[in-house]
Amino acid sequence: MAVAGGVISTPPSMPLPDRLRTLADELGALVAEFRPESVVVERVFFQVNARTAMATGQAAGVALVAAARSGCLVAQYTSNEVKQALVGYGGATKEQVQRMVAAVLGLEEPPRPPDVADALALAACHLTTQSLRRAVAAATGEAP
Amino acid sequence: MAVAGGVISTPPSMPLPDRLRTLADELGALVAEFRPESVVVERVFFQVNARTAMATGQAAGVALVAAARSGCLVAQYTSNEVKQALVGYGGATKEQVQRMVAAVLGLEEPPRPPDVADALALAACHLTTQSLRRAVAAATGEAP
Repeated sequence: MAVAGGVISTPPSMPLPDRLRTLADELGALVAEFRPESVVVERVFFQVNARTAMATGQAAGVALVAAARSGCLVAQYTSNEVKQALVGYGGATKEQVQRMVAAVLGLEEPPRPPDVADALALAACHLTTQSLRRAVAAATGEAP
Repeated sequence: MAVAGGVISTPPSMPLPDRLRTLADELGALVAEFRPESVVVERVFFQVNARTAMATGQAAGVALVAAARSGCLVAQYTSNEVKQALVGYGGATKEQVQRMVAAVLGLEEPPRPPDVADALALAACHLTTQSLRRAVAAATGEAP
């Protein structure tokens, strides 16, 4: 297992149960270390094929359990919700999304590699969505 | 969370991360209690829709981690492999499979409900597959 540039990776040659356990252990260590207020996991509905959907689902399930065990808020957004929240348009391009991510997070240039960029887009989406909810709550006197 | 008749169930109204965490906790408790030699998880390739594939993948991922953490052998078979192993024919009907499950496990009648029947079919498939591997290994002097 390796964490490089914000990406947890496991060797493809490792048996699947061990790869998922490594992911679970690493995510558990990260939430224990950083004690985040929120964990955001992409909500994936569409996949090119069922095998990819299954693999994505397995990793997401492991991430959701690690987040739930840490007791923090767990949020999920679809790719379209991320585009809508950041660019105001569900059909936005990746480049448009990444320029907004850089703006929201105060980065000098769009984040790399793509997996990190996608993760930061989810985080930026959550920040803007939560800010909006809190502003509405403050204005209306209701709980966010 | 409830374990009734061999099925772990969680209320659909519970948030997804909490349902998956409950599944993880319950499976962890079961492997700690029964210390199985093997855990078998169905390998699912095809699903009617991506949403179902995602949910199935999430639960499978959690099960694979629980199994890997227990240090036992983790096996996966597709539905077709189960049919092939038990009935000798990948297109066998559910009834044919369940009659063979009852025979292999010494049950007086086919198991119920369907989720338990499917789980026992996986277990029976694993038993017959392992037995065959061991017999081949014993005959050839190779490791199973």
